[in-house]
Amino acid sequence: MSQVAGIHAVAALLADAPERVRALYVQRGRRDQRMSEVISAARAHGIRVEFAERRWLDGRVEGSHQGVLADCHDLALADEHMLEARWPELGRPRLVLVLDGITDPRNLGACLRSANAAGVDAVLLPRRRSAPLNEAALKAAAGGAEGLFLVEVANLARRLEWLKEQGVWVIGADGSAELDWTSADFRQDCAIVVGSEGEGMRALTRKLCDHVVRIPMQGSVASLNVSVATGILLFEVVRQRGAV
Amino acid sequence: MSQVAGIHAVAALLADAPERVRALYVQRGRRDQRMSEVISAARAHGIRVEFAERRWLDGRVEGSHQGVLADCHDLALADEHMLEARWPELGRPRLVLVLDGITDPRNLGACLRSANAAGVDAVLLPRRRSAPLNEAALKAAAGGAEGLFLVEVANLARRLEWLKEQGVWVIGADGSAELDWTSADFRQDCAIVVGSEGEGMRALTRKLCDHVVRIPMQGSVASLNVSVATGILLFEVVRQRGAV
Repeated sequence: MSQVAGIHAVAALLADAPERVRALYVQRGRRDQRMSEVISAARAHGIRVEFAERRWLDGRVEGSHQGVLADCHDLALADEHMLEARWPELGRPRLVLVLDGITDPRNLGACLRSANAAGVDAVLLPRRRSAPLNEAALKAAAGGAEGLFLVEVANLARRLEWLKEQGVWVIGADGSAELDWTSADFRQDCAIVVGSEGEGMRALTRKLCDHVVRIPMQGSVASLNVSVATGILLFEVVRQRGAV
Repeated sequence: MSQVAGIHAVAALLADAPERVRALYVQRGRRDQRMSEVISAARAHGIRVEFAERRWLDGRVEGSHQGVLADCHDLALADEHMLEARWPELGRPRLVLVLDGITDPRNLGACLRSANAAGVDAVLLPRRRSAPLNEAALKAAAGGAEGLFLVEVANLARRLEWLKEQGVWVIGADGSAELDWTSADFRQDCAIVVGSEGEGMRALTRKLCDHVVRIPMQGSVASLNVSVATGILLFEVVRQRGAV
């Protein structure tokens, strides 16, 4: 079981996946308009709402909870059969995000928040070498994980080959690439691959990319945070596709 | 006094601001090439290097330290006189980042990492309503804070007026804006203003902007993480200025 805290994250969770919420805990005395909306939404879905002391919430949540906590059923990841079955229905041009070995749960959650914000159709997570979708990850995702099609992948190399067979352009991000991130054509079906925080993409994954791009550093830091790099790449897709 | 941990952050600190380092603590037995370079760099600057047990480092650092920790003098912020004095020397077109009330130290640090990566000339931090540049902030900045011109500002409204008098185009970011982020012309001298995590820019700050832009959400989350939004805006500047 996992939990989601914070008014924005809980509101997004109730909107996207109310079936995941087992119970809602609200700090006694916190009844501003935003909180009232959250309580109404929970009750409309038949979710039990309980009132608790602030101290009790403080003890259950690391960091800020803003007076609200949802106890959740674990987030279920889709399997690769579901990816193949749903593939024809996904938005065209399709946008897939591949997170190849993000090991910090907060970074994973932050990447999912950006993926949701950019309208990603599917996120592929390798079964091994991925951070768990735990409470820290779900909090960093700010409710974004529930609105995404998250697919657990057993063999990433094979799945990338499959994507290429479907006509998907596989674009990897790597600081040592020669081409800049704006040089890729993101207007067709594409999959963006980002690697782990320290080491980047694995060599085999990189070899399978059709195109590898970098975000060039203009200062003294060696790299961007992986979730920031992911956000920059995804919103370059949004820009190129003219949703803006 | 503050401390910086982690191999990338310490290497960047030694490159950018070795005078801030009082002492370097290295985990006994960790002598890979990267660590040897860090030790050599410290010794070249006359910095004392001590070896310590892993357990001792674990006890001093929250999170991962990768076997290295630097004890630092506090980061000194420049004042507004220094901003005015150095203004003529700053890169043209100039790029200023204004962080109007980021309250979480990790978010502040992550914004500074992105600012360094994008080649920002000056970062303005209001004296009130800003998270402290503490250890969590410096760790999230991954060594980026030391490479930046950080200016503490007493009265942000007055300083924005001053920037406008210098011909700087002040561009605010706000989810409720009508224009998208790519609609702004970032090729001239400009200042990008981002507000606090929850509330965004204050009303007075917003009123002083020449232009307000949004990054449009394509999914169900209400907003991006502030450091991701900052990264997307700053690298739109890099893109438009044709550094890429």
